Amino acid sequence: MKGRHNFSAGPGALPESVLREAQQAIAEVPEVGVSVLGISHRSRWFREVVDEAEEHLRVLLGIPAHYRVLFLQGGSTQQFSQIPMTLLRGAAHPAEYLHTGYWSGKSIPEARREGPVRVLWSGESDGFRRLPTDRELETSAEATYFHYVSNETVEGLQFHRVPGRDEVRRICDMSSDLLGAPVDMGRYDLIYAHAQKNLGPSGVTVVIVHDDVVAATPKDLPAMLDYRLHAEARSVYNTPPVFAIFVTLLVLRWLRSEIGGLDAMASINRRKAERLYGTLDGLKGVCRVWAAEPDRSRMNVLFDFAEPRLTPVFLREAEEAGFLGMEGHRTLPDTVRVSLYNAVTEASVDALAGFLEDFARING
Amino acid sequence: MKGRHNFSAGPGALPESVLREAQQAIAEVPEVGVSVLGISHRSRWFREVVDEAEEHLRVLLGIPAHYRVLFLQGGSTQQFSQIPMTLLRGAAHPAEYLHTGYWSGKSIPEARREGPVRVLWSGESDGFRRLPTDRELETSAEATYFHYVSNETVEGLQFHRVPGRDEVRRICDMSSDLLGAPVDMGRYDLIYAHAQKNLGPSGVTVVIVHDDVVAATPKDLPAMLDYRLHAEARSVYNTPPVFAIFVTLLVLRWLRSEIGGLDAMASINRRKAERLYGTLDGLKGVCRVWAAEPDRSRMNVLFDFAEPRLTPVFLREAEEAGFLGMEGHRTLPDTVRVSLYNAVTEASVDALAGFLEDFARING
Repeated sequence: MKGRHNFSAGPGALPESVLREAQQAIAEVPEVGVSVLGISHRSRWFREVVDEAEEHLRVLLGIPAHYRVLFLQGGSTQQFSQIPMTLLRGAAHPAEYLHTGYWSGKSIPEARREGPVRVLWSGESDGFRRLPTDRELETSAEATYFHYVSNETVEGLQFHRVPGRDEVRRICDMSSDLLGAPVDMGRYDLIYAHAQKNLGPSGVTVVIVHDDVVAATPKDLPAMLDYRLHAEARSVYNTPPVFAIFVTLLVLRWLRSEIGGLDAMASINRRKAERLYGTLDGLKGVCRVWAAEPDRSRMNVLFDFAEPRLTPVFLREAEEAGFLGMEGHRTLPDTVRVSLYNAVTEASVDALAGFLEDFARING
Repeated sequence: MKGRHNFSAGPGALPESVLREAQQAIAEVPEVGVSVLGISHRSRWFREVVDEAEEHLRVLLGIPAHYRVLFLQGGSTQQFSQIPMTLLRGAAHPAEYLHTGYWSGKSIPEARREGPVRVLWSGESDGFRRLPTDRELETSAEATYFHYVSNETVEGLQFHRVPGRDEVRRICDMSSDLLGAPVDMGRYDLIYAHAQKNLGPSGVTVVIVHDDVVAATPKDLPAMLDYRLHAEARSVYNTPPVFAIFVTLLVLRWLRSEIGGLDAMASINRRKAERLYGTLDGLKGVCRVWAAEPDRSRMNVLFDFAEPRLTPVFLREAEEAGFLGMEGHRTLPDTVRVSLYNAVTEASVDALAGFLEDFARING
């Protein structure tokens, strides 16, 4: 790690102290006497891991008692199916989806398999460079639910408000910004996020779901796609990804004890994003930010060079200088994506900003 | 770990050398320069991890080219659904299932949701103490497929032959014995196993599937349950459990280079099982092996004490002496289960056998 800066879009960087604790647990979990990789998920130790992780999430996000906190598998992709299987099969009214980028685009066909879908807005023809305003969204009070992605990881677009109407079930994929800032939990009926950005390593998906949604689970779903079974078993219906959940617990402890909670985390993330966007804006003519200004993501900063030939040069020189993981998504060649997840430090962003300025001065 | 013996039924013990390498990778993967927990699943490094893991499996198990090797999520439970969703929906002829213990019992209701099922044999009324003989199985040449569990982890029953007819698709849950001994791969159309016994940590499921089954995937399945999508994406359709797959690779390397392959592994496992069953048989009157002799599992040795009050005493004293993870499954109270997965050493089994003899002498 020494001197290296990991800006990977995901699986993303984790805090150094978390990595040290994870390493220790692979040798031995002292309370149990064996490696974390060889402990039964039915052990009291693991039950306490899940319970403590849930408790930290409840405190950090202010999750009321009438929500379940589930640790599942399959990532957002599985949630793209599980949500409409639960709520949309046989529904009279369509679910409303926003098509704001690559990931929300993946969620829509999965929903259509299960029931009626109305796409309220699509940024596809504009190349996903901005998000809709509230005026552009003709929501219906009759919708079965309203689904959106709070942060489009690929394009670097983030909602800085809560869209949709409060009288309709609001469901949000927060895979790439959950725990980056506080959430007004009571306005959502279901939030989901795979861990591998701000929460932990890949392999576990956090679902925070209102009891009414759990109660609405149809009786004939495959067991692994049945929220009720997972809620009743408190995330241990079958063997869960023990290590991924354990590392998530370490990250949650870090967030509370070392960072001091989500207000503090949000301030740090705001400063990091402002530093990098400020640098890019100062290099106008050389670098171009992808997202429209009001919708710029604080988690994923996407830009390209006015001269496309500079992109591979930049990425190569950056890598040599220790700045890693900044290739744009494979659907957006010639872009650079800098991911500023919680574990990326302000010092790393400062160093990158300086590197960018030097690069632009020499090549611009 | 020092002086401790992990006989957990799963997640099970992993080899010491694998744990050391996993620890190192959490600090840094040298080729990449960052922690294994923060590397993109789209990186060249991870592609090579998946490809090498597949290659080791192909060599170890003799997997022909017309099979895909997939690394998925959701454990056996998800396969219980995915298999009948793929092959049984709308089928004219029933799938045939054997009900030989706890885990095969879980697979049957999931299959019934999707299509017609015929349970050829059930050991339930006998308390799952033996497996059927071939004569007891009235298989049909018309069956859509034949499904069984090769090793019942909870009851300690293992098939030491391949049941079913070769002209019917044969599907096997090998979750708790895959890689414990060679497999006659060409006789199976689909084999699956979650990793957390012989293969690696929890969080990844290996599926080895004939191309014809992949080609039979219906077009309308949820993406995460679609073998074709996973096969086309070569296990990276969405973010896979990177760390669990990496540790699986380390285990596979260990199996080939340190153990020398599956024939060698099978010999070691046979000796371990013989040592422990031999000890238990020698303590007849005090200890009673659960499984009928021909069906004794080499992976999970289940027994109880003639005096049930001895079980908690034994487990407590064993734990104090460093023998861990031997509680029977929660559905079988008062039993002791010793799991002898690949990473459990002969020295550990010798030590346990000695401890058992001492315990029986004092308490018997």
